[in-house]
Amino acid sequence: MITQIDHIGIAVTSLEATIPHYRDALGLGEPHIEEVATQKVRVAMFDVGGVHIELLEPTSPDSPIAKAIEKNGGRGLIHHIAFKTDDAAAQLTQAKNAGCALINETPVPGAHNTQVGFLHPKSTFGVLTEFCQH
Amino acid sequence: MITQIDHIGIAVTSLEATIPHYRDALGLGEPHIEEVATQKVRVAMFDVGGVHIELLEPTSPDSPIAKAIEKNGGRGLIHHIAFKTDDAAAQLTQAKNAGCALINETPVPGAHNTQVGFLHPKSTFGVLTEFCQH
Repeated sequence: MITQIDHIGIAVTSLEATIPHYRDALGLGEPHIEEVATQKVRVAMFDVGGVHIELLEPTSPDSPIAKAIEKNGGRGLIHHIAFKTDDAAAQLTQAKNAGCALINETPVPGAHNTQVGFLHPKSTFGVLTEFCQH
Repeated sequence: MITQIDHIGIAVTSLEATIPHYRDALGLGEPHIEEVATQKVRVAMFDVGGVHIELLEPTSPDSPIAKAIEKNGGRGLIHHIAFKTDDAAAQLTQAKNAGCALINETPVPGAHNTQVGFLHPKSTFGVLTEFCQH
């Protein structure tokens, strides 16, 4: 069952260029920064009332985030919405039974000991959708 | 001051086609539906742990949402992020002083007696950003 929004993923070309906007212009405070090697990204996370804004910078040209930025004409974009769930596997099954195409047939390890699974945006009206189980 | 994410705005070509995905495939329950004439949209709102997913369907070809869908090749997309603030005017001033371009120099009336103001995505790394004061 989905209980809340876990995070909003935003693809950026450069964390260093983008962090000041969120920290200072919006006033969201200092982010937590870490690298997620499996996704080939560096991530800056801002906690906004319990929901995270995640800025995602590609660390390699073959990162999914690099490809999304390239497809968007080299510009950053809102990349995905992650829903927090108590059972990512059940969530994927429910979505598949309702006709969604799955990127992950079963959950895979995410950052911070999470289990995550993605739905293909072609089957979700253009919105890359993640389920995230902590 | 920003206190939480207020909502995520998602542009869709048809509420009727998209609502079943969010209601059934994701299991978010029945949405609240209303028309916002000033923005030329019909909106379906899903409450996800206090943050709303807003599906936005254009009611006119000159709706900003119609233009965003057209620009995206006729496909829906994650359109904007709205931050809840206790002072939308101060938030706009802070962003302007930090170098952001404003779509609204001062807050304008939004749905549900809110005051809202938008930052131009050209100055926010491609992310259309809204401040929303209840």
